[in-house]
Amino acid sequence: MQADVISTVNEAAPDDFFRKTVIVIDVLRATSTIVTALAHGCKEVVPVETVQQARERQRPGDLLGGERFCQKIEGFDYGNSPLEYRSSAIFGKRVVLTTTNGTRAIQKYKEAAHVIAGSMLNAEACIRAAIELDRDLIIVCSGTRDMFSLEDSLCAGLLLEKLAQKRGGELRMNDLGAAMRLAYRSANSDLGQTLLTGANGKRLSEIGYRSDVIFCSQADRYDTVPILKEQSMIVF
Amino acid sequence: MQADVISTVNEAAPDDFFRKTVIVIDVLRATSTIVTALAHGCKEVVPVETVQQARERQRPGDLLGGERFCQKIEGFDYGNSPLEYRSSAIFGKRVVLTTTNGTRAIQKYKEAAHVIAGSMLNAEACIRAAIELDRDLIIVCSGTRDMFSLEDSLCAGLLLEKLAQKRGGELRMNDLGAAMRLAYRSANSDLGQTLLTGANGKRLSEIGYRSDVIFCSQADRYDTVPILKEQSMIVF
Repeated sequence: MQADVISTVNEAAPDDFFRKTVIVIDVLRATSTIVTALAHGCKEVVPVETVQQARERQRPGDLLGGERFCQKIEGFDYGNSPLEYRSSAIFGKRVVLTTTNGTRAIQKYKEAAHVIAGSMLNAEACIRAAIELDRDLIIVCSGTRDMFSLEDSLCAGLLLEKLAQKRGGELRMNDLGAAMRLAYRSANSDLGQTLLTGANGKRLSEIGYRSDVIFCSQADRYDTVPILKEQSMIVF
Repeated sequence: MQADVISTVNEAAPDDFFRKTVIVIDVLRATSTIVTALAHGCKEVVPVETVQQARERQRPGDLLGGERFCQKIEGFDYGNSPLEYRSSAIFGKRVVLTTTNGTRAIQKYKEAAHVIAGSMLNAEACIRAAIELDRDLIIVCSGTRDMFSLEDSLCAGLLLEKLAQKRGGELRMNDLGAAMRLAYRSANSDLGQTLLTGANGKRLSEIGYRSDVIFCSQADRYDTVPILKEQSMIVF
């Protein structure tokens, strides 16, 4: 099995995903939020790019979620804090979610066999799903405005560490994957504190979302794996 | 002091280097070779892009060095193995050096205050020079055909670890730098073995240059810091 990491989606051409399983990571906060919502009984998350698309896709009973510049959008039910998505009001609902960053890349994955959402929160479950899906993997760190981000890369390292434990010598990875795995090993004793030193962790902390950063740094809190089906994320 | 790492030179615009000290890293093997040559008494290394440029720049008494696809170029005195550049025949000479990868980026650094060559071999000396030059730093990993490479990123991590030890809380770094520092900490007990697992390490090992990989993985073997002056690398 080959498992490669790319540090932003723009590094890849659509062909690079051909017949592979893509694990999309946006630890702070899109994929952590999608995982949390589905883990708390949300039926379906519809990721969209713009605020207007969110309003257009909303059907009666749907909730609207999303952020611009880390803040909730006016008139929306929820922002992009995973903590909000633990509400019982989510149960059985469909959420249309727009974020600045994490939901844009999905158009690029047309050639992929499967697209699943990864985060620290569902790392173990995500790797079990990836093994079950039995394809080569591309782990896509969302990054921030095309810049490498610390939290996504440490999450990629965590996923590879788990995958290597299960696959041993059979696993091949690219140099970025190997480096991320090494970085994760140095950080794993306190992921929360490490995430707070990254650019996104600092920024979120400064505007009042420190608890989000800490929440998103928990490994294996949920067993839920979001998978993309017809432009929606549902439980695998 | 700000110290940022970029994973390939193409990520940066010339303006990003404005008034900064650039540390160029190409562990396997261009910067390791330049460091080794100057450490063994070579007077000056002239990095050029093409074989033709190398022949044009050669003056009487100059030696020609370089590789294409990891092999010595026909009619050249040396390849790109740092081990060759320990020869006493190098002493007092000027070497015109062309490599596939490591010498191309220098054109981009016109706006930089200083350009120095970094490697594992001269890490400590490199950081002492960077502190003396007293500018913000950009550490440029050369990578391979625009791909992230394990050995350059671990070298960046080693440099940042040393810089952080000397500068403590005063030092700020970007997320890639923070991740590389973490990766280095996991790998530092056996850099040689780790480098052999990277794409370049494997490839060089397969074609008979395993001893180069091991040589290039030695931290602080030399005190020499190559610095760019009028298109030549000389001893700082």
